[in-house]
Amino acid sequence: MSPHKPHPPKALAFDVFGTVVDWHRGVATEAASLAARHGVALDASAFANDWRAGYPVAMDRVRRGELPWTHIDGLHRMILDGIVGRHGLDMLDESERSHLNRAWHRLPAWPDTVGGLLRLKRHFTITTLSNGNFSLLTEMAKNAGLPWDCVVSAELFGHYKPDPETYLGCARLLDVAPGDLMLVACHPSDLRAARSNGLRTAYVKRPKENGPGTRLPEVAEGEFDWVAEDFGHLADLMENP
Amino acid sequence: MSPHKPHPPKALAFDVFGTVVDWHRGVATEAASLAARHGVALDASAFANDWRAGYPVAMDRVRRGELPWTHIDGLHRMILDGIVGRHGLDMLDESERSHLNRAWHRLPAWPDTVGGLLRLKRHFTITTLSNGNFSLLTEMAKNAGLPWDCVVSAELFGHYKPDPETYLGCARLLDVAPGDLMLVACHPSDLRAARSNGLRTAYVKRPKENGPGTRLPEVAEGEFDWVAEDFGHLADLMENP
Repeated sequence: MSPHKPHPPKALAFDVFGTVVDWHRGVATEAASLAARHGVALDASAFANDWRAGYPVAMDRVRRGELPWTHIDGLHRMILDGIVGRHGLDMLDESERSHLNRAWHRLPAWPDTVGGLLRLKRHFTITTLSNGNFSLLTEMAKNAGLPWDCVVSAELFGHYKPDPETYLGCARLLDVAPGDLMLVACHPSDLRAARSNGLRTAYVKRPKENGPGTRLPEVAEGEFDWVAEDFGHLADLMENP
Repeated sequence: MSPHKPHPPKALAFDVFGTVVDWHRGVATEAASLAARHGVALDASAFANDWRAGYPVAMDRVRRGELPWTHIDGLHRMILDGIVGRHGLDMLDESERSHLNRAWHRLPAWPDTVGGLLRLKRHFTITTLSNGNFSLLTEMAKNAGLPWDCVVSAELFGHYKPDPETYLGCARLLDVAPGDLMLVACHPSDLRAARSNGLRTAYVKRPKENGPGTRLPEVAEGEFDWVAEDFGHLADLMENP
Protein backbone atom coordinates (compact mmCIF):
# COMPACT_ATOMS: atom_id res chain seq x y z
CA MET A 1 0.00 0.00 0.00
CA SER A 2 1.15 3.55 -0.65
CA PRO A 3 2.85 5.29 2.26
CA HIS A 4 0.40 8.22 2.26
CA LYS A 5 -3.29 7.37 2.31
CA PRO A 6 -5.31 9.80 0.24
CA HIS A 7 -9.05 10.07 0.77
CA PRO A 8 -10.81 7.67 -1.57
CA PRO A 9 -12.06 8.98 -4.92
CA LYS A 10 -15.71 8.87 -5.99
CA ALA A 11 -15.12 7.55 -9.48
CA LEU A 12 -12.49 5.43 -11.21
CA ALA A 13 -11.55 6.00 -14.85
CA PHE A 14 -9.63 3.21 -16.53
CA ASP A 15 -7.14 3.35 -19.31
CA VAL A 16 -8.09 0.37 -21.47
CA PHE A 17 -5.46 -0.93 -23.94
CA GLY A 18 -2.94 -2.81 -21.82
CA THR A 19 -4.52 -1.85 -18.51
CA VAL A 20 -7.87 -3.63 -18.91
CA VAL A 21 -7.37 -5.81 -21.97
CA ASP A 22 -4.46 -7.82 -23.36
CA TRP A 23 -4.06 -6.20 -26.78
CA HIS A 24 -0.84 -8.11 -27.47
CA ARG A 25 -2.41 -11.53 -27.18
CA GLY A 26 -5.64 -10.50 -28.89
CA VAL A 27 -3.96 -8.95 -31.91
CA ALA A 28 -1.22 -11.56 -32.20
CA THR A 29 -3.72 -14.43 -32.05
CA GLU A 30 -5.95 -13.01 -34.77
CA ALA A 31 -3.02 -12.05 -36.99
CA ALA A 32 -1.42 -15.49 -36.61
CA SER A 33 -4.64 -17.19 -37.60
CA LEU A 34 -5.03 -14.98 -40.67
CA ALA A 35 -1.38 -15.47 -41.67
CA ALA A 36 -1.72 -19.25 -41.35
CA ARG A 37 -4.64 -19.20 -43.79
CA HIS A 38 -2.31 -17.57 -46.29
CA GLY A 39 0.62 -19.89 -45.50
CA VAL A 40 2.68 -16.99 -44.15
CA ALA A 41 5.16 -17.64 -41.33
CA LEU A 42 4.37 -14.58 -39.22
CA ASP A 43 6.18 -13.42 -36.07
CA ALA A 44 2.82 -12.56 -34.55
CA SER A 45 4.25 -11.00 -31.40
CA ALA A 46 6.45 -8.67 -33.45
CA PHE A 47 3.51 -7.87 -35.72
CA ALA A 48 1.32 -6.91 -32.72
CA ASN A 49 4.07 -4.76 -31.21
CA ASP A 50 4.73 -3.11 -34.58
CA TRP A 51 1.05 -2.23 -34.99
CA ARG A 52 0.83 -0.91 -31.46
CA ALA A 53 4.02 1.15 -31.87
CA GLY A 54 2.36 3.20 -34.59
CA TYR A 55 -0.47 4.21 -32.30
CA PRO A 56 1.11 6.97 -30.17
CA VAL A 57 2.83 8.34 -33.29
CA ALA A 58 -0.47 8.57 -35.16
CA MET A 59 -2.29 10.15 -32.19
CA ASP A 60 0.46 12.71 -31.83
CA ARG A 61 -0.08 13.71 -35.46
CA VAL A 62 -3.74 14.36 -34.59
CA ARG A 63 -2.80 16.16 -31.40
CA ARG A 64 -0.38 18.44 -33.29
CA GLY A 65 -3.00 19.16 -35.95
CA GLU A 66 -1.12 17.40 -38.77
CA LEU A 67 -4.11 15.11 -39.20
CA PRO A 68 -7.75 16.15 -38.73
CA TRP A 69 -9.63 14.38 -35.95
CA THR A 70 -9.47 10.68 -36.82
CA HIS A 71 -10.82 8.02 -34.50
CA ILE A 72 -8.77 5.04 -33.47
CA ASP A 73 -10.39 2.64 -35.92
CA GLY A 74 -9.18 4.99 -38.64
CA LEU A 75 -5.69 5.37 -37.18
CA HIS A 76 -5.35 1.63 -36.63
CA ARG A 77 -6.23 1.05 -40.26
CA MET A 78 -3.67 3.59 -41.52
CA ILE A 79 -0.98 1.92 -39.41
CA LEU A 80 -2.04 -1.57 -40.50
CA ASP A 81 -1.80 -0.62 -44.17
CA GLY A 82 1.69 0.68 -43.48
CA ILE A 83 3.04 -2.48 -41.82
CA VAL A 84 1.48 -5.41 -43.72
CA GLY A 85 4.22 -5.24 -46.36
CA ARG A 86 7.13 -5.79 -44.04
CA HIS A 87 5.37 -8.71 -42.36
CA GLY A 88 4.62 -10.50 -45.61
CA LEU A 89 0.89 -9.81 -45.40
CA ASP A 90 0.34 -7.45 -48.32
CA MET A 91 -1.94 -10.00 -49.98
CA LEU A 92 -4.66 -9.26 -47.39
CA ASP A 93 -7.71 -7.92 -49.18
CA GLU A 94 -10.05 -5.17 -48.04
CA SER A 95 -12.40 -7.48 -46.21
CA GLU A 96 -9.55 -9.22 -44.37
CA ARG A 97 -7.91 -5.93 -43.39
CA SER A 98 -11.22 -4.51 -42.21
CA HIS A 99 -11.88 -7.60 -40.12
CA LEU A 100 -8.36 -7.68 -38.68
CA ASN A 101 -8.62 -3.98 -37.85
CA ARG A 102 -11.56 -4.77 -35.62
CA ALA A 103 -9.47 -7.25 -33.62
CA TRP A 104 -9.08 -4.23 -31.33
CA HIS A 105 -12.84 -4.45 -30.63
CA ARG A 106 -12.46 -8.10 -29.64
CA LEU A 107 -9.49 -7.92 -27.26
CA PRO A 108 -9.55 -10.32 -24.30
CA ALA A 109 -9.61 -9.03 -20.73
CA TRP A 110 -6.73 -9.91 -18.42
CA PRO A 111 -7.73 -12.82 -16.12
CA ASP A 112 -8.13 -10.48 -13.11
CA THR A 113 -10.04 -7.73 -14.94
CA VAL A 114 -13.72 -8.66 -14.72
CA GLY A 115 -13.60 -9.90 -11.12
CA GLY A 116 -11.71 -6.80 -10.00
CA LEU A 117 -14.05 -4.44 -11.83
CA LEU A 118 -17.12 -6.10 -10.31
CA ARG A 119 -15.68 -5.58 -6.84
CA LEU A 120 -14.70 -1.96 -7.52
CA LYS A 121 -18.10 -1.23 -9.07
CA ARG A 122 -19.75 -1.87 -5.71
CA HIS A 123 -17.95 1.12 -4.22
CA PHE A 124 -17.24 3.47 -7.11
CA THR A 125 -18.54 4.61 -10.46
CA ILE A 126 -16.29 2.86 -12.97
CA THR A 127 -15.76 4.14 -16.49
CA THR A 128 -13.35 3.82 -19.35
CA LEU A 129 -11.14 6.81 -20.17
CA SER A 130 -9.49 5.63 -23.33
CA ASN A 131 -8.29 6.95 -26.64
CA GLY A 132 -10.27 4.12 -28.24
CA ASN A 133 -13.37 5.32 -30.02
CA PHE A 134 -16.76 5.08 -28.37
CA SER A 135 -18.09 2.22 -30.48
CA LEU A 136 -14.85 0.27 -30.12
CA LEU A 137 -15.01 0.54 -26.32
CA THR A 138 -18.71 -0.33 -26.27
CA GLU A 139 -18.26 -3.42 -28.45
CA MET A 140 -15.18 -4.48 -26.51
CA ALA A 141 -17.14 -4.29 -23.25
CA LYS A 142 -19.91 -6.42 -24.71
CA ASN A 143 -17.45 -8.98 -26.06
CA ALA A 144 -15.30 -9.21 -22.94
CA GLY A 145 -18.03 -8.74 -20.31
CA LEU A 146 -16.55 -5.53 -18.90
CA PRO A 147 -19.14 -4.19 -16.44
CA TRP A 148 -18.63 -0.42 -16.92
CA ASP A 149 -21.13 2.01 -15.46
CA CYS A 150 -20.56 4.12 -18.56
CA VAL A 151 -18.16 4.47 -21.48
CA VAL A 152 -16.03 7.60 -21.83
CA SER A 153 -13.80 8.02 -24.87
CA ALA A 154 -11.39 10.68 -26.07
CA GLU A 155 -13.75 10.87 -29.05
CA LEU A 156 -16.29 12.69 -26.84
CA PHE A 157 -13.84 15.55 -26.39
CA GLY A 158 -12.15 15.62 -29.82
CA HIS A 159 -8.84 15.35 -27.94
CA TYR A 160 -6.55 12.44 -27.25
CA LYS A 161 -4.87 11.71 -23.93
CA PRO A 162 -2.66 13.20 -22.61
CA ASP A 163 -4.49 16.42 -23.56
CA PRO A 164 -6.06 17.98 -20.43
CA GLU A 165 -9.49 18.08 -22.10
CA THR A 166 -9.75 14.31 -21.70
CA TYR A 167 -9.09 14.06 -17.95
CA LEU A 168 -11.06 17.19 -17.10
CA GLY A 169 -13.83 16.33 -19.54
CA CYS A 170 -14.28 12.94 -17.88
CA ALA A 171 -14.57 14.58 -14.45
CA ARG A 172 -17.08 17.10 -15.82
CA LEU A 173 -19.26 14.40 -17.40
CA LEU A 174 -19.27 12.42 -14.17
CA ASP A 175 -19.96 15.65 -12.23
CA VAL A 176 -17.04 15.10 -9.84
CA ALA A 177 -14.12 17.33 -8.99
CA PRO A 178 -10.85 16.26 -10.66
CA GLY A 179 -9.56 15.30 -7.20
CA ASP A 180 -12.48 12.90 -6.78
CA LEU A 181 -11.63 11.05 -9.98
CA MET A 182 -8.84 8.47 -10.12
CA LEU A 183 -7.15 7.27 -13.28
CA VAL A 184 -6.17 3.61 -13.26
CA ALA A 185 -3.49 2.81 -15.81
CA CYS A 186 -0.41 0.72 -16.49
CA HIS A 187 1.30 3.60 -18.32
CA PRO A 188 3.13 6.12 -16.12
CA SER A 189 2.94 8.85 -18.80
CA ASP A 190 -0.85 8.71 -18.75
CA LEU A 191 -0.90 8.78 -14.95
CA ARG A 192 1.52 11.71 -14.81
CA ALA A 193 -0.70 13.74 -17.15
CA ALA A 194 -3.77 12.85 -15.07
CA ARG A 195 -1.98 13.88 -11.89
CA SER A 196 -0.91 17.19 -13.38
CA ASN A 197 -4.61 17.86 -14.06
CA GLY A 198 -5.51 17.17 -10.44
CA LEU A 199 -6.70 13.58 -10.69
CA ARG A 200 -5.75 10.83 -8.29
CA THR A 201 -3.74 7.98 -9.73
CA ALA A 202 -3.43 4.22 -9.45
CA TYR A 203 -0.62 2.42 -11.23
CA VAL A 204 -1.36 -1.20 -12.08
CA LYS A 205 1.51 -3.37 -13.23
CA ARG A 206 1.02 -5.25 -16.48
CA PRO A 207 4.25 -7.24 -16.89
CA LYS A 208 3.01 -8.98 -20.05
CA GLU A 209 1.61 -5.95 -21.87
CA ASN A 210 3.98 -6.28 -24.83
CA GLY A 211 4.16 -10.05 -24.70
CA PRO A 212 7.15 -12.16 -23.63
CA GLY A 213 9.77 -9.39 -23.75
CA THR A 214 7.86 -6.76 -21.76
CA ARG A 215 9.97 -4.44 -19.61
CA LEU A 216 8.02 -2.78 -16.82
CA PRO A 217 8.26 1.01 -16.92
CA GLU A 218 10.18 2.90 -14.26
CA VAL A 219 8.05 4.37 -11.51
CA ALA A 220 9.40 6.39 -8.59
CA GLU A 221 8.52 5.43 -5.02
CA GLY A 222 5.39 7.32 -3.94
CA GLU A 223 4.88 8.81 -7.38
CA PHE A 224 1.27 7.59 -7.60
CA ASP A 225 -1.44 7.37 -4.94
CA TRP A 226 -1.83 3.63 -5.26
CA VAL A 227 0.29 0.86 -6.76
CA ALA A 228 -1.34 -2.50 -7.48
CA GLU A 229 -0.21 -5.84 -8.86
CA ASP A 230 -3.53 -6.37 -10.67
CA PHE A 231 -7.22 -5.40 -10.39
CA GLY A 232 -7.89 -7.84 -7.55
CA HIS A 233 -5.10 -6.21 -5.57
CA LEU A 234 -6.43 -2.76 -6.48
CA ALA A 235 -9.85 -3.79 -5.13
CA ASP A 236 -8.16 -5.00 -1.91
CA LEU A 237 -6.46 -1.62 -1.52
CA MET A 238 -9.53 0.45 -2.31
CA GLU A 239 -11.81 -1.57 -0.05
CA ASN A 240 -9.42 -1.04 2.87
CA PRO A 241 -8.11 2.48 2.39
CA MET B 1 -46.83 -7.04 -34.07
CA SER B 2 -46.54 -4.34 -36.70
CA PRO B 3 -48.04 -5.22 -40.07
CA HIS B 4 -44.78 -4.55 -41.93
CA LYS B 5 -41.70 -6.31 -40.65
CA PRO B 6 -38.61 -4.12 -40.97
CA HIS B 7 -35.16 -5.68 -40.85
CA PRO B 8 -33.94 -5.66 -37.26
CA PRO B 9 -31.72 -2.79 -36.10
CA LYS B 10 -28.21 -3.25 -34.73
CA ALA B 11 -28.58 -0.99 -31.73
CA LEU B 12 -31.41 0.20 -29.51
CA ALA B 13 -31.43 3.68 -27.99
CA PHE B 14 -33.87 4.24 -25.13
CA ASP B 15 -35.62 7.35 -24.05
CA VAL B 16 -35.39 7.21 -20.26
CA PHE B 17 -37.81 9.40 -18.25
CA GLY B 18 -41.16 7.63 -18.48
CA THR B 19 -39.97 4.97 -20.91
CA VAL B 20 -37.42 3.23 -18.68
CA VAL B 21 -38.08 4.67 -15.23
CA ASP B 22 -41.20 5.76 -13.35
CA TRP B 23 -40.40 9.41 -12.67
CA HIS B 24 -43.89 10.08 -11.35
CA ARG B 25 -43.68 7.57 -8.54
CA GLY B 26 -40.04 8.33 -7.77
CA VAL B 27 -40.51 12.07 -7.50
CA ALA B 28 -43.91 11.91 -5.76
CA THR B 29 -42.60 9.48 -3.15
CA GLU B 30 -39.57 11.57 -2.26
CA ALA B 31 -41.56 14.82 -2.23
CA ALA B 32 -44.28 13.30 -0.02
CA SER B 33 -41.72 12.11 2.47
CA LEU B 34 -40.05 15.53 2.61
CA ALA B 35 -43.41 17.33 2.93
CA ALA B 36 -44.44 15.01 5.77
CA ARG B 37 -41.29 15.94 7.69
CA HIS B 38 -42.43 19.57 7.47
CA GLY B 39 -46.07 18.78 8.31
CA VAL B 40 -47.20 19.91 4.86
CA ALA B 41 -50.22 18.18 3.26
CA LEU B 42 -48.83 17.81 -0.25
CA ASP B 43 -50.64 16.55 -3.34
CA ALA B 44 -47.53 14.63 -4.31
CA SER B 45 -48.90 13.45 -7.66
CA ALA B 46 -49.75 17.02 -8.67
CA PHE B 47 -46.35 18.20 -7.46
CA ALA B 48 -44.55 15.58 -9.57
CA ASN B 49 -46.61 16.44 -12.65
CA ASP B 50 -46.05 20.16 -12.09
CA TRP B 51 -42.27 19.66 -11.88
CA ARG B 52 -42.24 17.49 -14.96
CA ALA B 53 -44.41 19.97 -16.90
CA GLY B 54 -41.69 22.59 -16.60
CA TYR B 55 -39.14 20.34 -18.26
CA PRO B 56 -40.03 20.62 -21.97
CA VAL B 57 -40.59 24.36 -21.51
CA ALA B 58 -37.13 24.81 -19.99
CA MET B 59 -35.45 22.66 -22.66
CA ASP B 60 -37.15 24.63 -25.39
CA ARG B 61 -35.66 27.80 -23.94
CA VAL B 62 -32.22 26.20 -24.30
CA ARG B 63 -33.04 24.95 -27.80
CA ARG B 64 -34.14 28.43 -28.90
CA GLY B 65 -31.00 29.99 -27.43
CA GLU B 66 -32.83 31.96 -24.69
CA LEU B 67 -30.78 30.07 -22.11
CA PRO B 68 -27.16 28.98 -22.56
CA TRP B 69 -26.54 25.23 -22.46
CA THR B 70 -27.80 24.09 -19.08
CA HIS B 71 -27.90 20.45 -18.10
CA ILE B 72 -31.01 18.81 -16.74
CA ASP B 73 -29.90 18.95 -13.11
CA GLY B 74 -29.70 22.72 -13.57
CA LEU B 75 -33.05 22.96 -15.37
CA HIS B 76 -34.76 20.73 -12.80
CA ARG B 77 -33.48 22.99 -10.04
CA MET B 78 -34.75 26.16 -11.76
CA ILE B 79 -38.18 24.58 -12.16
CA LEU B 80 -38.21 23.28 -8.59
CA ASP B 81 -37.44 26.73 -7.19
CA GLY B 82 -40.32 28.06 -9.27
CA ILE B 83 -42.96 25.61 -8.00
CA VAL B 84 -42.20 25.06 -4.30
CA GLY B 85 -44.19 28.17 -3.36
CA ARG B 86 -47.48 27.05 -4.82
CA HIS B 87 -47.15 23.63 -3.20
CA GLY B 88 -46.51 25.03 0.29
CA LEU B 89 -42.88 23.93 0.28
CA ASP B 90 -41.03 27.24 0.23
CA MET B 91 -39.50 26.45 3.63
CA LEU B 92 -37.22 23.87 2.01
CA ASP B 93 -33.62 24.92 2.56
CA GLU B 94 -30.72 24.61 0.14
CA SER B 95 -29.68 21.19 1.30
CA GLU B 96 -33.24 19.82 1.07
CA ARG B 97 -33.78 21.29 -2.38
CA SER B 98 -30.46 19.96 -3.61
CA HIS B 99 -31.29 16.50 -2.30
CA LEU B 100 -34.82 16.54 -3.72
CA ASN B 101 -33.45 17.69 -7.08
CA ARG B 102 -31.42 14.52 -7.23
CA ALA B 103 -34.55 12.39 -6.84
CA TRP B 104 -34.27 12.28 -10.65
CA HIS B 105 -31.01 10.32 -10.20
CA ARG B 106 -32.81 7.81 -8.00
CA LEU B 107 -35.90 7.05 -10.07
CA PRO B 108 -37.21 3.47 -9.91
CA ALA B 109 -37.35 1.29 -13.02
CA TRP B 110 -40.72 0.00 -14.21
CA PRO B 111 -41.21 -3.63 -13.11
CA ASP B 112 -40.59 -4.94 -16.65
CA THR B 113 -37.56 -2.75 -17.38
CA VAL B 114 -34.53 -4.67 -16.13
CA GLY B 115 -35.70 -8.08 -17.29
CA GLY B 116 -36.58 -6.73 -20.73
CA LEU B 117 -33.27 -4.89 -21.09
CA LEU B 118 -31.29 -7.99 -20.13
CA ARG B 119 -33.07 -9.96 -22.86
CA LEU B 120 -32.61 -7.24 -25.47
CA LYS B 121 -28.94 -6.82 -24.52
CA ARG B 122 -28.24 -10.36 -25.72
CA HIS B 123 -29.15 -9.39 -29.26
CA PHE B 124 -28.46 -5.66 -29.55
CA THR B 125 -26.26 -2.89 -28.23
CA ILE B 126 -28.49 -1.03 -25.78
CA THR B 127 -27.91 2.57 -24.80
CA THR B 128 -29.73 5.50 -23.30
CA LEU B 129 -30.57 8.43 -25.56
CA SER B 130 -31.95 10.88 -23.05
CA ASN B 131 -32.00 14.57 -22.36
CA GLY B 132 -30.87 13.71 -18.84
CA ASN B 133 -27.27 14.66 -18.17
CA PHE B 134 -24.53 12.07 -18.36
CA SER B 135 -23.92 11.81 -14.61
CA LEU B 136 -27.64 11.63 -13.87
CA LEU B 137 -28.07 8.73 -16.30
CA THR B 138 -24.97 6.98 -14.98
CA GLU B 139 -26.07 7.27 -11.35
CA MET B 140 -29.61 6.25 -12.21
CA ALA B 141 -28.33 3.11 -13.94
CA LYS B 142 -26.24 2.23 -10.90
CA ASN B 143 -29.17 2.81 -8.52
CA ALA B 144 -31.77 0.98 -10.57
CA GLY B 145 -29.56 -1.78 -11.99
CA LEU B 146 -30.08 -0.75 -15.63
CA PRO B 147 -27.66 -2.88 -17.66
CA TRP B 148 -26.76 -0.41 -20.44
CA ASP B 149 -23.89 -1.17 -22.78
CA CYS B 150 -23.12 2.54 -22.71
CA VAL B 151 -24.68 5.84 -21.68
CA VAL B 152 -25.51 8.47 -24.31
CA SER B 153 -26.87 11.83 -23.26
CA ALA B 154 -27.96 14.97 -25.08
CA GLU B 155 -25.18 16.59 -23.05
CA LEU B 156 -22.62 14.91 -25.32
CA PHE B 157 -23.96 16.87 -28.29
CA GLY B 158 -24.88 20.17 -26.63
CA HIS B 159 -28.36 19.69 -28.11
CA TYR B 160 -31.60 18.44 -26.64
CA LYS B 161 -33.99 16.05 -28.32
CA PRO B 162 -35.77 16.53 -30.66
CA ASP B 163 -32.81 18.30 -32.31
CA PRO B 164 -31.38 16.08 -35.11
CA GLU B 165 -27.88 16.28 -33.58
CA THR B 166 -29.01 13.94 -30.80
CA TYR B 167 -30.38 11.10 -32.95
CA LEU B 168 -27.64 11.35 -35.56
CA GLY B 169 -24.95 11.87 -32.93
CA CYS B 170 -25.99 8.67 -31.17
CA ALA B 171 -25.77 6.72 -34.43
CA ARG B 172 -22.36 8.22 -35.16
CA LEU B 173 -20.98 7.34 -31.70
CA LEU B 174 -22.24 3.77 -32.06
CA ASP B 175 -20.84 3.66 -35.62
CA VAL B 176 -24.14 2.50 -37.13
CA ALA B 177 -26.22 3.99 -39.92
CA PRO B 178 -29.30 5.87 -38.67
CA GLY B 179 -31.45 3.12 -40.18
CA ASP B 180 -29.66 0.54 -38.02
CA LEU B 181 -30.51 2.41 -34.82
CA MET B 182 -33.93 2.14 -33.21
CA LEU B 183 -35.33 4.60 -30.70
CA VAL B 184 -37.50 3.05 -27.99
CA ALA B 185 -39.80 5.58 -26.34
CA CYS B 186 -43.23 6.11 -24.85
CA HIS B 187 -43.49 9.62 -26.35
CA PRO B 188 -44.70 9.80 -29.96
CA SER B 189 -43.11 13.24 -30.49
CA ASP B 190 -39.66 11.82 -29.73
CA LEU B 191 -40.29 8.85 -32.03
CA ARG B 192 -41.53 11.07 -34.85
CA ALA B 193 -38.36 13.18 -34.66
CA ALA B 194 -36.21 10.04 -34.63
CA ARG B 195 -38.07 8.68 -37.65
CA SER B 196 -37.65 11.91 -39.57
CA ASN B 197 -33.90 11.52 -39.03
CA GLY B 198 -33.95 8.01 -40.48
CA LEU B 199 -34.04 5.96 -37.27
CA ARG B 200 -36.30 2.98 -36.70
CA THR B 201 -38.88 3.35 -33.96
CA ALA B 202 -40.51 1.31 -31.22
CA TYR B 203 -43.40 2.76 -29.25
CA VAL B 204 -43.81 1.32 -25.78
CA LYS B 205 -47.01 2.12 -23.88
CA ARG B 206 -46.62 3.55 -20.41
CA PRO B 207 -50.19 3.96 -19.17
CA LYS B 208 -49.07 5.13 -15.72
CA GLU B 209 -46.43 7.63 -16.78
CA ASN B 210 -48.18 10.61 -15.20
CA GLY B 211 -49.68 8.65 -12.33
CA PRO B 212 -53.35 7.75 -11.84
CA GLY B 213 -54.79 10.16 -14.42
CA THR B 214 -52.48 9.29 -17.33
CA ARG B 215 -54.00 9.50 -20.80
CA LEU B 216 -52.15 7.49 -23.40
CA PRO B 217 -51.03 9.60 -26.36
CA GLU B 218 -52.64 9.11 -29.76
CA VAL B 219 -50.66 6.97 -32.17
CA ALA B 220 -51.75 6.18 -35.70
CA GLU B 221 -51.90 2.56 -36.91
CA GLY B 222 -48.57 1.61 -38.49
CA GLU B 223 -46.96 4.90 -37.53
CA PHE B 224 -44.01 3.21 -35.82
CA ASP B 225 -42.07 0.08 -36.72
CA TRP B 226 -42.93 -1.72 -33.52
CA VAL B 227 -45.58 -1.23 -30.82
CA ALA B 228 -45.11 -2.94 -27.46
CA GLU B 229 -47.05 -3.17 -24.22
CA ASP B 230 -43.84 -3.17 -22.15
CA PHE B 231 -40.17 -4.17 -22.40
CA GLY B 232 -40.92 -7.88 -22.04
CA HIS B 233 -43.28 -7.65 -24.99
CA LEU B 234 -40.69 -5.62 -26.93
CA ALA B 235 -38.13 -8.39 -26.31
CA ASP B 236 -40.69 -10.97 -27.55
CA LEU B 237 -41.17 -8.95 -30.74
CA MET B 238 -37.47 -8.33 -31.37
CA GLU B 239 -36.49 -11.94 -30.70
CA ASN B 240 -39.03 -13.13 -33.28
CA PRO B 241 -38.95 -10.51 -36.01
